[in-house]
Amino acid sequence: MPPASAPETRYRLTLAYDGAGYHGMTVLPGVATVQGEVERVLGGLLNRPVRLEAASRTDAGVHARGQVAHFDAPRLPDPSRFLHALNRLLPDAIRATALRRVSSDFHARFSATGKEYRYRIHQAPVLPPLLRFDRVHEPAPLDLPAMRRAADALVGEHDFSSFAWNPGYKPASAVRRVTRISIVRRGPEVEIRVCGDGFLPRMVRAIAGYLLNVGAGRADPAQTTALLAARRRHPLIVTAPAHGLCLWRVGYGRGGEQTGK
Amino acid sequence: MPPASAPETRYRLTLAYDGAGYHGMTVLPGVATVQGEVERVLGGLLNRPVRLEAASRTDAGVHARGQVAHFDAPRLPDPSRFLHALNRLLPDAIRATALRRVSSDFHARFSATGKEYRYRIHQAPVLPPLLRFDRVHEPAPLDLPAMRRAADALVGEHDFSSFAWNPGYKPASAVRRVTRISIVRRGPEVEIRVCGDGFLPRMVRAIAGYLLNVGAGRADPAQTTALLAARRRHPLIVTAPAHGLCLWRVGYGRGGEQTGK
Repeated sequence: MPPASAPETRYRLTLAYDGAGYHGMTVLPGVATVQGEVERVLGGLLNRPVRLEAASRTDAGVHARGQVAHFDAPRLPDPSRFLHALNRLLPDAIRATALRRVSSDFHARFSATGKEYRYRIHQAPVLPPLLRFDRVHEPAPLDLPAMRRAADALVGEHDFSSFAWNPGYKPASAVRRVTRISIVRRGPEVEIRVCGDGFLPRMVRAIAGYLLNVGAGRADPAQTTALLAARRRHPLIVTAPAHGLCLWRVGYGRGGEQTGK
Repeated sequence: MPPASAPETRYRLTLAYDGAGYHGMTVLPGVATVQGEVERVLGGLLNRPVRLEAASRTDAGVHARGQVAHFDAPRLPDPSRFLHALNRLLPDAIRATALRRVSSDFHARFSATGKEYRYRIHQAPVLPPLLRFDRVHEPAPLDLPAMRRAADALVGEHDFSSFAWNPGYKPASAVRRVTRISIVRRGPEVEIRVCGDGFLPRMVRAIAGYLLNVGAGRADPAQTTALLAARRRHPLIVTAPAHGLCLWRVGYGRGGEQTGK
């Protein structure tokens, strides 16, 4: 171990996880969270408490393929070897997929310039059993063109109060910028891919739940702009189940991956 | 319900399942099996005991995409509706994917003319958490051409005692015909697809375990014929983990799907 006065080095850690067994990303007292598990293992390896800062506070049950977090530690002689040690000690529902040194002003949350979430639907009469952990089942055909029309009305900078977590939730501002929503079909798999600068709590699940109502013909895509302008929750805007959602990727603009800017 | 003297009708049922929670396909006293679950639900729907005969006795932990079974019941007025009712009552780890009337001489096991199993490997430094239920992880690159050379030596009619369940297992005959083994790569996914008329217990897992040893350079593919001829287990022939295996398909020759021949 270096002496206590050794300068700290900042590391950027990429995580993939199966959210099923966890009460979300962020540490909560008394329950298992992804952050809690990773901090425990990092702390054991570094022989001191480690504080992890994650880009996204994914909800209970939500999965991640590319969550990003940072932590400070004494200089690691071999980050790739450290990554292996981390994966040997982590539960197999959580994998560290990349570890790299970043500049000390990199911040996993505040430096992020964009995030992509994917909501996964299996549209077929029967849901194959091994897909039940990360797909929602939709037995009826979906009207993808209608879903795309509704999605187009959501893209841009808007007050997303209608798609916020619940009517009682009042953030400082509910204005967020959704940069793209694409609806992609591959065989029976339908993916709603949502990219944006930032999201209100459960906003992506509300978008997915609403678009599923549009796809099933229960909501008219032409209503979307009015639902958004109402700035309060409409019964057609439902929160889709957590297990269909995956934090796919966090972006750090140009040069951000190296410099943290 | 028809009177007790009504002639019985034979039904062919296709099943997909996540084998993780079950002690295999076949009923065993005191433990959960796929057959036990399906018989329980069928019995409840038909209001009488039902006996299911399955094509393959998959082991504990082995998955299926296309297991086939038959049962006898009074004529069902609407098999497609019955299939829906079945799926509403079955645990979501087991799905009935098809149900059709067959002639009374169809037998899921004895009429089968071939089976395909697939063994799935994820070859990458890290195993994505949501793939851990049905893939085995192989961090090191695999020598696929070497695996294919070894596989070719296994194709054909042979005494497969070397690949039988354990040295103490003595079936009436260990001669089986493997009609094809293909090794397919798609990105990090490597699949060993094994087709044959019939297999000894755990034979496909032994083939997969041996081919993985070949792929990793621990076994020389040129040895394969000698290992087979030895007719006893060699330490390089290891039983690969159950969760990588999936019963993909059961074939019933020409016309077999309709007539049971």
